[in-house]
Amino acid sequence: MSYASRYFPNEPTAPKVVTESIPGPKGKSAIASLGEVFDNRCAYFVADYEKSVGNYIVDVDGNVLLDAYAQIASIPLGYNNPKLIEVAKSDKMTRAIVNRPALGNFPGADFEQMQRDLLKHAPKGQTHVWNGLSGADANELAFKAVFFNYQSKKRGFDKPFTKEEEVSCMENMAPGNPEIAILSFKKAFHGRLFASGSVTRSKPVHKMDMPSFAWPTAEFPAYKYPLEENEEANMAEDARCLAIVEDRLQNWKCPIAGVIVEPVQSEGGDNHASAAFFQGLRDLTLKYGAKLIIDEVQAGCGATGIMWDHERYNITPPPDLVTFSKKMQSAGYWFHDPELIPNQPYRQFNTWCGDPKGVILAAAICDEVVDNNLLEPLRETGDYFYSKLESIQKQYPKLISNLRGKGKACFLAFDMPSGSLRADFLGKMKLAGVNVGGCADVGVRLRPGLTFEKKHVDIFIAAMEKVLPTL
Amino acid sequence: MSYASRYFPNEPTAPKVVTESIPGPKGKSAIASLGEVFDNRCAYFVADYEKSVGNYIVDVDGNVLLDAYAQIASIPLGYNNPKLIEVAKSDKMTRAIVNRPALGNFPGADFEQMQRDLLKHAPKGQTHVWNGLSGADANELAFKAVFFNYQSKKRGFDKPFTKEEEVSCMENMAPGNPEIAILSFKKAFHGRLFASGSVTRSKPVHKMDMPSFAWPTAEFPAYKYPLEENEEANMAEDARCLAIVEDRLQNWKCPIAGVIVEPVQSEGGDNHASAAFFQGLRDLTLKYGAKLIIDEVQAGCGATGIMWDHERYNITPPPDLVTFSKKMQSAGYWFHDPELIPNQPYRQFNTWCGDPKGVILAAAICDEVVDNNLLEPLRETGDYFYSKLESIQKQYPKLISNLRGKGKACFLAFDMPSGSLRADFLGKMKLAGVNVGGCADVGVRLRPGLTFEKKHVDIFIAAMEKVLPTL
Repeated sequence: MSYASRYFPNEPTAPKVVTESIPGPKGKSAIASLGEVFDNRCAYFVADYEKSVGNYIVDVDGNVLLDAYAQIASIPLGYNNPKLIEVAKSDKMTRAIVNRPALGNFPGADFEQMQRDLLKHAPKGQTHVWNGLSGADANELAFKAVFFNYQSKKRGFDKPFTKEEEVSCMENMAPGNPEIAILSFKKAFHGRLFASGSVTRSKPVHKMDMPSFAWPTAEFPAYKYPLEENEEANMAEDARCLAIVEDRLQNWKCPIAGVIVEPVQSEGGDNHASAAFFQGLRDLTLKYGAKLIIDEVQAGCGATGIMWDHERYNITPPPDLVTFSKKMQSAGYWFHDPELIPNQPYRQFNTWCGDPKGVILAAAICDEVVDNNLLEPLRETGDYFYSKLESIQKQYPKLISNLRGKGKACFLAFDMPSGSLRADFLGKMKLAGVNVGGCADVGVRLRPGLTFEKKHVDIFIAAMEKVLPTL
Repeated sequence: MSYASRYFPNEPTAPKVVTESIPGPKGKSAIASLGEVFDNRCAYFVADYEKSVGNYIVDVDGNVLLDAYAQIASIPLGYNNPKLIEVAKSDKMTRAIVNRPALGNFPGADFEQMQRDLLKHAPKGQTHVWNGLSGADANELAFKAVFFNYQSKKRGFDKPFTKEEEVSCMENMAPGNPEIAILSFKKAFHGRLFASGSVTRSKPVHKMDMPSFAWPTAEFPAYKYPLEENEEANMAEDARCLAIVEDRLQNWKCPIAGVIVEPVQSEGGDNHASAAFFQGLRDLTLKYGAKLIIDEVQAGCGATGIMWDHERYNITPPPDLVTFSKKMQSAGYWFHDPELIPNQPYRQFNTWCGDPKGVILAAAICDEVVDNNLLEPLRETGDYFYSKLESIQKQYPKLISNLRGKGKACFLAFDMPSGSLRADFLGKMKLAGVNVGGCADVGVRLRPGLTFEKKHVDIFIAAMEKVLPTL
């Protein structure tokens, strides 16, 4: 019996759309009234999380949608998962909620075990974790670790700060606050605070009007599809992009202490790269003394059919830092080199230093994935999904192109001819009972939870077959 | 019957120290083993949060300490507060834990009421809230709102981004990413990410080796105590500091879009300022078109005997933004001008847009404070505490000086002659049964929860009387 059948006996067998538009009348009224207390301009609909179950999200109008977007790829195990409800109701969670500690100063007796439970699920080659609160936070904490390491190595790990450094950093000036950079890729998305925003390169609306650090970009490979038919061109593309990275590492106006990259650029359009590209990047970072940070915020936690997507590339040696959030319902960065623990206490520090609630949840989610062997059926579901989409792509070559993500479970995407057709498609898919999201200008990205099964794929495909002829 | 007596019938009547050092043998061993999975260098002791109750924290050695530090000022209502346990176990909280939404896109039907429950507790004059995850996050989100507002006003709120802006921001360059600043004060603490770190001016270890924005500082008043005897000098100090602010606003190399200030500089040494100073600041920000951001992360949520500390200054018009975190067990910023809602959707946006768990907790905490009228007895406790400390200051003038915070409930502080004597004092206070923390170089800051009562003050004072003669 499948996980969804066992855990969600009451999961609907099909979507049900009861209003002529989504949101329907109740949803429209709920959005309007929400607008008095919250920015409602991005609300697709108002959900009823009490009634949502498994792979189905229910809205306040009573519409029941198959959810292949899962809260921007952040719900791992379906709505109202009974195992997570058990964890949420546990005394351990209650204590974590009502006695949130300043973990750095007054860790609780149960915190060590929580960390160990989480560390069991570290990416291959990673042995440590530092806890944060969101993907942007995790990336910025990783940057701090990288900058501290770079400057401490330059200064000598056992050397104290100089007087000049101490005085200048209080004025936000060098040498205490050095000019030093993180390299990122065009179309990357790593968050929307100020340093994370500086490495994000997805859309102007994500970056406009914010002061930023003048850090360098390189180009992420833009492959031709299908991959099998374009091997030579795509290898040349890898080489072209790596040459740009090397140029930046050699010639940028200030030292580049780290390179951050997503294993799949998700917000930026579901852009994939080859094992050779990632290994080339690893080699270059080693050659030029920069740390390699892999941002697994969206692709990690099982989404691509293995626990951490970059593991499939056997990057050697493993990346220096790996960040996580979203499906982990928590955030932080994994690492393995003890030199990335700052050479003095209170450098990587803040009041909460993470959140035991999040650590408990993240460990419970990963345990659930492993204990139920969820990723093997997910990979099968993904292969099935891909083959169905491949047929549709052949059937509708003017509407669907660049199907990508093969072998990465349900972490699939395709392009549509224009942003307006894409918007039309997404809206009509909702009315056909399926919630699905876009990425970049014309992409459609499939981001269901880890509990998605072939029966859900069939429903998704049936909805597409209904919608595409109407576009 | 007092709140603590009603809610914590099992609260100890006195501290109990059972080991010769804190941490004792079990604590030392727990810290050592924690070090395998977490940076343990800042750990004072390992707590047993199952046994901690009310105003008392228990460690793994069985030491029972009166807690006047409360997780760096972040535990509002005592350990294992039964009302918060009820909230933590509620179905509403469980749903928020297991179905964490992308609030911007798919808000839940219950979210509007959660926001309204929270908004009831907004500072006077504030009508809106935007949710974040930590104090640093809240401040940076506030900066984004300020920068978006500043640039949109300059461009015209109804004007689209120009092509040049769109292209340049993707390269982290002006005009899309303008050079534009937030002014902060020397000794300020506003967090440790990159923009929040750029306005933090507390200690070099908080800032060293991070790239930062070259933003301006001004000086925060340094008053002479006791205030009653130094009115003239302190008025002159206000004028001197405001003149520096005006100079920066007039002459800084780039536009200053916002000014951020704590109502009490806490991490930086518990530095207070007058109503005249804050009003002067308000007037200058209005005169030069900068937004005034009050950082209530530490002083807010009732800590100083009123819900939001800056309210006592009747700043007119009210500050543009007020940030919160810590005792709110959540984070965000309050505001009232609808122009601070960005002129386009998806500008102030991220996957989670806050956390319903935090919103539920924050509202429940504030409700509890109001429903139980907790702040009136807290103010009385604080007056009592101050008078006791005043006597001690007279008795030990060489050890205790600059007692400050009068009239601000238990949000009190004093200085010691040196950092090493302060460290000695804090360590011996633990052995005398009281957990208390420092601030800046020689300060001792009292940061108990809102449930601190006269009987706790007596215990604190008795411990001081035991410790001070041994220094």
